[in-house]
Amino acid sequence: MSATWLNKVRWDEYGLVPVIAQEVGTGDVLMFAWMNRDALAKTVALGEAVYWSRSRKKLWHKGEESGHVQKVHEIRLDCDEDVVLLRVEQAGEIACHTGRHSCFFQKFDGTEKSGLWNAVDPVLKDPETIYK
Amino acid sequence: MSATWLNKVRWDEYGLVPVIAQEVGTGDVLMFAWMNRDALAKTVALGEAVYWSRSRKKLWHKGEESGHVQKVHEIRLDCDEDVVLLRVEQAGEIACHTGRHSCFFQKFDGTEKSGLWNAVDPVLKDPETIYK
Repeated sequence: MSATWLNKVRWDEYGLVPVIAQEVGTGDVLMFAWMNRDALAKTVALGEAVYWSRSRKKLWHKGEESGHVQKVHEIRLDCDEDVVLLRVEQAGEIACHTGRHSCFFQKFDGTEKSGLWNAVDPVLKDPETIYK
Repeated sequence: MSATWLNKVRWDEYGLVPVIAQEVGTGDVLMFAWMNRDALAKTVALGEAVYWSRSRKKLWHKGEESGHVQKVHEIRLDCDEDVVLLRVEQAGEIACHTGRHSCFFQKFDGTEKSGLWNAVDPVLKDPETIYK
């Protein structure tokens, strides 16, 4: 895949680019992941988010196990061409592997000296029933 | 700064964490940057976004030159504790150094074989008048 549009992305030293997934409609930031060249090309071809799993070192078609696929409505690139923003429709309204809507469910409370992270968003579905 | 809440963040091999800045109200994703431990502590203490500039290798109080500071309304941490989401009020409604509202102004159009990135959002203020 030698398409010009893929060359415009400034891939990092590992050949990756950070990706933010945002829900269309609500504007909620759902998750953050990484893509390599192949993942971004496949995302466009498929119309669904395909990431690069750094832990498993392979392509990860989001929702392949859970069914919680992300239908891509729009793809944006930032001013430095090194971050991608996906505007997606989230199947099952669950993006997080904990069964929550968004991965960003821990809210900071307190001060610099004495703060903590509180889980403030509900689990919509038990992960054990998501990943059978 | 040895606060427990800072220890919960999984800093990467460079001591950094990726940060997404989202505008409260509109929900627009404004920009993406990095923080080290000191930057996150200062962000909480100040109530305004302080990033780590990887290019300049120093703390970067966003808006220190442009006046486009980001007042922090909420700080979130993701499920893996390795990405931060800031919900901010954007001074001047301009987050991008190009004078645009958001850094994500380049929209993908086309197909996998023949795509391109189109700048679709307007420049609100000439960068030359922002950075004098």
